[in-house]
Amino acid sequence: MTRYEKVATVLRERIERGIYRVDDRLPSIRAVCKEMEVSISTAQEAYRQLMDAALIESRPKSGYFVLPSRVPTVLPSVSRPAQRPLDISQWDQVLELIATQRDDSRLLLGRGVPNLDYETLKPLSKILAGLHRSSDFNGFNYDKLNGSPELRQQVAKLAVASNCLLHPDDILITTGCQEALAISLRTLTQPGDVVAVDSPSFYGTMQILKANGLKALEIPTDPQTGISLEALELALEQWPIRAIQVTPTFNNPLGYTMPEARKRALFQLAQRFDVAIIEDDIYGDLAFTQPRPCTIKSFDDDGRVLLCSGFSKTVGPGLRVGWLAPGRYRDQALHMKYVSTGASATLPQLAVAEFVAKGYYERHLRYANRQYQRQRDIMISWVQRYFPEGSGISYPQGSFLLWVELPAAVDCVRLNERLAQKKLHVAPGSLFSASGKFRQCLRLNYAFTLTPAMEDAVRSVGELAMKMVEEANQHAAY
Amino acid sequence: MTRYEKVATVLRERIERGIYRVDDRLPSIRAVCKEMEVSISTAQEAYRQLMDAALIESRPKSGYFVLPSRVPTVLPSVSRPAQRPLDISQWDQVLELIATQRDDSRLLLGRGVPNLDYETLKPLSKILAGLHRSSDFNGFNYDKLNGSPELRQQVAKLAVASNCLLHPDDILITTGCQEALAISLRTLTQPGDVVAVDSPSFYGTMQILKANGLKALEIPTDPQTGISLEALELALEQWPIRAIQVTPTFNNPLGYTMPEARKRALFQLAQRFDVAIIEDDIYGDLAFTQPRPCTIKSFDDDGRVLLCSGFSKTVGPGLRVGWLAPGRYRDQALHMKYVSTGASATLPQLAVAEFVAKGYYERHLRYANRQYQRQRDIMISWVQRYFPEGSGISYPQGSFLLWVELPAAVDCVRLNERLAQKKLHVAPGSLFSASGKFRQCLRLNYAFTLTPAMEDAVRSVGELAMKMVEEANQHAAY
Repeated sequence: MTRYEKVATVLRERIERGIYRVDDRLPSIRAVCKEMEVSISTAQEAYRQLMDAALIESRPKSGYFVLPSRVPTVLPSVSRPAQRPLDISQWDQVLELIATQRDDSRLLLGRGVPNLDYETLKPLSKILAGLHRSSDFNGFNYDKLNGSPELRQQVAKLAVASNCLLHPDDILITTGCQEALAISLRTLTQPGDVVAVDSPSFYGTMQILKANGLKALEIPTDPQTGISLEALELALEQWPIRAIQVTPTFNNPLGYTMPEARKRALFQLAQRFDVAIIEDDIYGDLAFTQPRPCTIKSFDDDGRVLLCSGFSKTVGPGLRVGWLAPGRYRDQALHMKYVSTGASATLPQLAVAEFVAKGYYERHLRYANRQYQRQRDIMISWVQRYFPEGSGISYPQGSFLLWVELPAAVDCVRLNERLAQKKLHVAPGSLFSASGKFRQCLRLNYAFTLTPAMEDAVRSVGELAMKMVEEANQHAAY
Repeated sequence: MTRYEKVATVLRERIERGIYRVDDRLPSIRAVCKEMEVSISTAQEAYRQLMDAALIESRPKSGYFVLPSRVPTVLPSVSRPAQRPLDISQWDQVLELIATQRDDSRLLLGRGVPNLDYETLKPLSKILAGLHRSSDFNGFNYDKLNGSPELRQQVAKLAVASNCLLHPDDILITTGCQEALAISLRTLTQPGDVVAVDSPSFYGTMQILKANGLKALEIPTDPQTGISLEALELALEQWPIRAIQVTPTFNNPLGYTMPEARKRALFQLAQRFDVAIIEDDIYGDLAFTQPRPCTIKSFDDDGRVLLCSGFSKTVGPGLRVGWLAPGRYRDQALHMKYVSTGASATLPQLAVAEFVAKGYYERHLRYANRQYQRQRDIMISWVQRYFPEGSGISYPQGSFLLWVELPAAVDCVRLNERLAQKKLHVAPGSLFSASGKFRQCLRLNYAFTLTPAMEDAVRSVGELAMKMVEEANQHAAY
């Protein structure tokens, strides 16, 4: 290795480890010369090499800056689920993922939790600590059944960013987005009914289907444009579908955002077949570019869209502050809310309302989204480097979840079993299917602060996956 | 009126208005002489009159003390509901009662909320304000699916008082007792199933039955000993009952506590017919005498009792901290919990756990229960004075809810309509029935601080009820 290659390698590693991040200025040529004891021409040559690799760029009069990684060339494939209604067969693995989060000694690389360590969240603690000092403090009493008026006001204001004009009374505060989804499904369906879902699909929704004796009709879904409208139309012709459940923006787990035209087309399709849409927008505010994408609800001129969202992926899931805009189903949704939990906890509602009203929420989003965008690129670069060749990787434009499709030889449930020895855990793809499909897929979370220890963890996952590919190849060779 | 009668009347009014409360020491003879400018013999005679009326007693070397009111002589009648499974027909009035609590300009005399103004609750605000200072503060993250270990530990300790030996892992924290009840019913039943309930019965449970397409079989219930075991046995022989739902301790709304032997007999009956019991113990800690009554769960040797409780009636309903001990149904209950709300809000759980662990809960109970016992007696004296003659009044040994049975001529739904002009509202009895029975009954809350304004409000209700009786009599005379 030449001298300049050595310098370039050191710098490249720092970029990949996140020591220099996207948009960070690199040390000057002079500083590099001094630090690494090389000549100016060597340092210049190293920087040229990094520019050739599109890792950095030179900006006139400013210096050298880290570029975002390129779009991964291999996306996951379009899903091809069974085209008939299915009962949900998964639960044990979901329980494994969710029931153990707080005191699990394993590093849960696939969990759905945002980064809660950012300084921009700190004002929330202060707000909570100060709530009881308000003269009209009523935080231990029941809130209104449809939720705190203060919070509904703020939610209505925020919804404008997604092109939704909601009155505060159109909004029903729930105990997390999960309750919003549960209320929606229970409002629309009876046991035995069929619900069309994008696929892969959030396991929480799948479990609601299971608990209510509903059948999932999983629709093929494209990792860039979302649920196939063509397949959905065929399904609507063929099956008595009671509701369409989709997460069209920063989809969990597949990462796509449906283009606006397709969102509109999906709404029109629902209208044509007179079916309701349950839109999960829980990740919608985590957009890397502004304005954030519109919701399907923004096209809703006859109240058939039940928009489900909340603050679990932005402010904190432990607050359990979600919300539902149930459209024309308001009365039934209110009844379902009452029987489900009576009301939602008052204090978290008041705290979030103040956090939003004082501008802390927007400030936090700006900060977190910048971090998540950088961390997406770093996580993608790690997966590209350490995972088996040909792995498909999603390219989300918001949120903090990556979907990776490994070679078919890798069974991620078995992968997890072997990762347990290393105290590691990924979210296996089969969680996101009614019938255990997507076993060669996994979900990774890049909301974590991406330390070298995190890189080691991702490398360990990749190495084990490669080993499983090799084992399969050897087995096939016999 | 003689001089001493005047003095006695002044003192009597003060007792009735709660200025001197049960167990309070009255002013000394000397103090009365000075205040009212009367002779010693006049003051003595006045006190003698109050003793004759059993309003006060003289204690040697201590002075004169306020006595509790006597047991009301007329109890409500034993309920005689329809002896067949019914669909729940009520909802609008429940909505009226619950959806408007926070900013209603009416005085909601029948609401189910405890007194949240007591000083003994103050430490809770401090605890909440201090939570984020803990070094391992994690209050914005998901709690465990079954709830905070700290809280489950405290709940297990508290349960000992009701003779229940529960391990913290036997307990599932819920979003209020309502979620515990909803989870229990959804765990045990399918749409169309029949559930036996005491009658009258908490409207929140009735609405869960309605939302899940269940039928209520209302069992005759005695205002002193609770659900009729004889009628229940007949019903179990006759109908395919999937669960028995009861509130056997400080029943809402009827006020009875089932004697221990009848609780045991109820459990044995359930065992004989192999049916589960959903036991609502939300008021159980509000006992006027110690030890508090045992739960049916305390007899549960095969896990068929699902014990539902929480801190809404003691610490504050807005915290939404409930719990469920689901016995042998733990796995299904955990699944239902997950699909319902994912997890419960973290901060309220941590706050309540600390409130209990530091002894504040017990201190608060001691204080609140003393207040509630006094206020029960005052409220009963008001009802006896102002309500139509022959009104039946419950005599609860705990909690803060009174059940009043008016003459059949009084329709409490219509009574409420007329009370609206006076900005008053009672909980009409029909809320507590599957099919709108108990229209001549109403529920009153005596957790309020019983001010003269409250007495005026109760008097207004009584006067209007008397007017309705008169109107009916006149109508009958034609």
